[in-house]
Amino acid sequence: MTELKVQHILTLTQLISKGAKHNFVPITTSSLGKSIQKSQQAASKHLLELERDGFIERLMSGRKVSVKITPKGYDEMVKLSSILKSNLDSFPSFVELKGTLVSGMGEGAYYMSLKGYTKQFKSKIGYVPFPGTLNVKLHQKEYVEAAQQFNTLEGIMIDGFSDDKRTYGWVKCFKAKLNNSINSELIILERTHHDTTVIELISKQNIRKIGKLKNGSHLTIRIPIKT
Amino acid sequence: MTELKVQHILTLTQLISKGAKHNFVPITTSSLGKSIQKSQQAASKHLLELERDGFIERLMSGRKVSVKITPKGYDEMVKLSSILKSNLDSFPSFVELKGTLVSGMGEGAYYMSLKGYTKQFKSKIGYVPFPGTLNVKLHQKEYVEAAQQFNTLEGIMIDGFSDDKRTYGWVKCFKAKLNNSINSELIILERTHHDTTVIELISKQNIRKIGKLKNGSHLTIRIPIKT
Repeated sequence: MTELKVQHILTLTQLISKGAKHNFVPITTSSLGKSIQKSQQAASKHLLELERDGFIERLMSGRKVSVKITPKGYDEMVKLSSILKSNLDSFPSFVELKGTLVSGMGEGAYYMSLKGYTKQFKSKIGYVPFPGTLNVKLHQKEYVEAAQQFNTLEGIMIDGFSDDKRTYGWVKCFKAKLNNSINSELIILERTHHDTTVIELISKQNIRKIGKLKNGSHLTIRIPIKT
Repeated sequence: MTELKVQHILTLTQLISKGAKHNFVPITTSSLGKSIQKSQQAASKHLLELERDGFIERLMSGRKVSVKITPKGYDEMVKLSSILKSNLDSFPSFVELKGTLVSGMGEGAYYMSLKGYTKQFKSKIGYVPFPGTLNVKLHQKEYVEAAQQFNTLEGIMIDGFSDDKRTYGWVKCFKAKLNNSINSELIILERTHHDTTVIELISKQNIRKIGKLKNGSHLTIRIPIKT
């Protein structure tokens, strides 16, 4: 492929929509410019470049210009379209995070077993979590950055509530697979004491036990993303 | 949109296929270069340009580079993909030719009524043509050029044949609509006395009569194209 610009491709698609695959379609550079949101000069330059590289044929009669797309130009568009389509349809839709198991502060066990939360867990994620959360330290910057996106992604919302004494913040849950085997949920807390390098997981089971994990164990967490 | 090159888009699709929509994926410029069929230097330059324009984020740790696609970068691909797809799916698939009616040399009437042809016309295009062909002179270069493609396009083949005296060439037929109303066939002859500026049509009916046409009448011929 040559150094075609995306703008060239847009110009070609514009031409094709006017029938230029099979016909010489009359064209003015000012109308072409408008339809690709560029100046008339830019549109004119595109046509010259596309002709030079064999993507279109131009015919001048007087001041009228007609343009037809060559088989090469059409092929280029079909090729690009199918590469784009297949990649956009098939890319892996998950976030993978890696880190090591660290101790929590014991708070998770307390909060997660409050009735205001457990009732919602039961109905919204299908189980009451084992008391306690699994804390995972992300050592590498790429995982810390990748984990940030869950702040803005949509998950299952466990609403906050209040009792006589205080209010408790919401919890957002994302289905997660730990070490390729253990079902769990990544939880994002409205209020957390952790910095961004630590993520928390909950599960129906005692993950430490069934996964034979101890502090320092290497963990891989894969979280599917809806797209 | 910026002046993104098609190569940049290919780089982005390559990254997305590795999961870079949601994750920072480790990448070497030499492997990236290979997969987009460019040099390592070109791949490296693409990454810098894509980062500068906000299409990717890069993370360096030591000599390791990880790359994640930004929402802007992803949107750009989705946008381009849908523009391409909709235009490639929906463009008008016909050739439109314009010209004026001229006199033929009377030969058409003779040839088209030979039994070796009429039998095939009947079975392959569904009718025996009115004796005589309609000759249309294409005055403008764009129509002359556009008409040329029927030499290579696939149409309905009426085979040549021979009698005791001589052989007769094949005739290739394309369904055509004349002046938006009259059904006819554009015919391409293996042997023709015409230059490329004259095309010939046949029809079940006497086109001159039912179309109230005379020499010099302006004609528009639309020929659907299978794609």
